[in-house]
Amino acid sequence: MGASLDGYIASPDGSYAWLERATRSAKGDDFGMGKFFASIDTVIMGRKTWQVALKHGMNKTGFPKMKNYVFSRRLLPGTRHGVEFVAGDPHAFIARLKRQPGKDIWLCGGGELAREFLKRGALDEVGMGIVPLLIGSGRPAFPPVFGEVQLELVRNESHKAGIVVLVYKVVRSRRRPSMNRPKPSPKRKGGD
Amino acid sequence: MGASLDGYIASPDGSYAWLERATRSAKGDDFGMGKFFASIDTVIMGRKTWQVALKHGMNKTGFPKMKNYVFSRRLLPGTRHGVEFVAGDPHAFIARLKRQPGKDIWLCGGGELAREFLKRGALDEVGMGIVPLLIGSGRPAFPPVFGEVQLELVRNESHKAGIVVLVYKVVRSRRRPSMNRPKPSPKRKGGD
Repeated sequence: MGASLDGYIASPDGSYAWLERATRSAKGDDFGMGKFFASIDTVIMGRKTWQVALKHGMNKTGFPKMKNYVFSRRLLPGTRHGVEFVAGDPHAFIARLKRQPGKDIWLCGGGELAREFLKRGALDEVGMGIVPLLIGSGRPAFPPVFGEVQLELVRNESHKAGIVVLVYKVVRSRRRPSMNRPKPSPKRKGGD
Repeated sequence: MGASLDGYIASPDGSYAWLERATRSAKGDDFGMGKFFASIDTVIMGRKTWQVALKHGMNKTGFPKMKNYVFSRRLLPGTRHGVEFVAGDPHAFIARLKRQPGKDIWLCGGGELAREFLKRGALDEVGMGIVPLLIGSGRPAFPPVFGEVQLELVRNESHKAGIVVLVYKVVRSRRRPSMNRPKPSPKRKGGD
C-alpha cells in the first residue's frame, strides 16, 4: 500500500490525491509493482477501499487480470462485472480460497480489513510505499487495536520522487492461516 | 526518533521496551546517531518524553554534552541538575534560542511538541528509525491534527536488525522559524 510518512493511506475524506500526485511525479518508476502483480492472481479488499478506488477511476470490473473479491456486510453479495462481493466471514472465506491452487493473494489497502487479518495472523508479508509527506490526519494504514506483530525487513528501496518501498515478512503473529498458498502450484488463469 | 512501522514511538503506557529490544539486537550499529550527536548542541523535549526517559534510566542531568530543555506547563520552571524547565511558549523560546550562535537543535521524540512545531513550520528535518514491528496501538510519532508538510528524502539506510533510517528535509510547511541556526557559526561549548 501507499502511505504518508505519518502512516495514512487516505485523507480524512478517503481521497488520496496526494498519493497520486507523488506517484505521478515519479513517472517511469513502477515501485516494483510489475513484479508484484506477476506474483498474484487474486486481490481482496474491503468495501471502503473498493468504493474509494471506483471514485478514483477504477473500472467496475476491478483490477484487470486477476480475481477480485470485495468484503462487505453492506453491499449485496454475488458477482457483478466479474467482481465477487462477499458478505460472510473473511477469515473462513480466505481459508477456503487458500485450499485452491493458485498464486499469491493481495490484500489491497490497509485499514480495517488489514487489521482483522493482522489480528488473526493471516498476513505473510507487508509492503509499503512511503510517500515523502506528512498529511497530518486521515485513515491509518494500520488502524488500532491489534497485537504485536514481528516483522523481518526483506526489501528497502529508494524510488523516484523520494518514495521508499519497504517490504517485510511477518515473522510471528498470533495465529496462522497464511495467505500464501503452497508452491509449486498449478497456475490458475487470471481474471476469470 | 525511533518508531514502529505502524507509527508509534511508545506503547499505550508510554514504555518503549520494544524499541530497546530492537536496538539491542542491532548491537554495534549506532544508526548514524554518533554523527547526528556531533551536529547538535541542544536538545528540547516535552514533559512526557522527559518523564519516560527518566523512567527508562536517563540521568536527571539529561542528555550528556548538550544543553537540555524540557517544555512543560506542569513542572516547576527553572534549572535543576543542569536541565532547564521551560513553562512558556515553546515557539517564542525557540525563536530566542535560534538567535544565539550554536549548532543544530534536536527535538527529541515525536508526539505533541512535534505536532506543535509541525503546525508552525519550525522543523527543518525529520529523522526516523523504523523498527520492523507493528505494535498495534500506542503513542503516535505524529499525533493529528496538523496541516500537510512536504518532505524531501535525503537519506535511506537499512541498518542491523532490519531497522530503516529515513531522513527527510522539510520542503514546505506553513510558516518558518527554522530550528537550524545560520552557519558557519561559532561553536558553543556543549553541556554548559
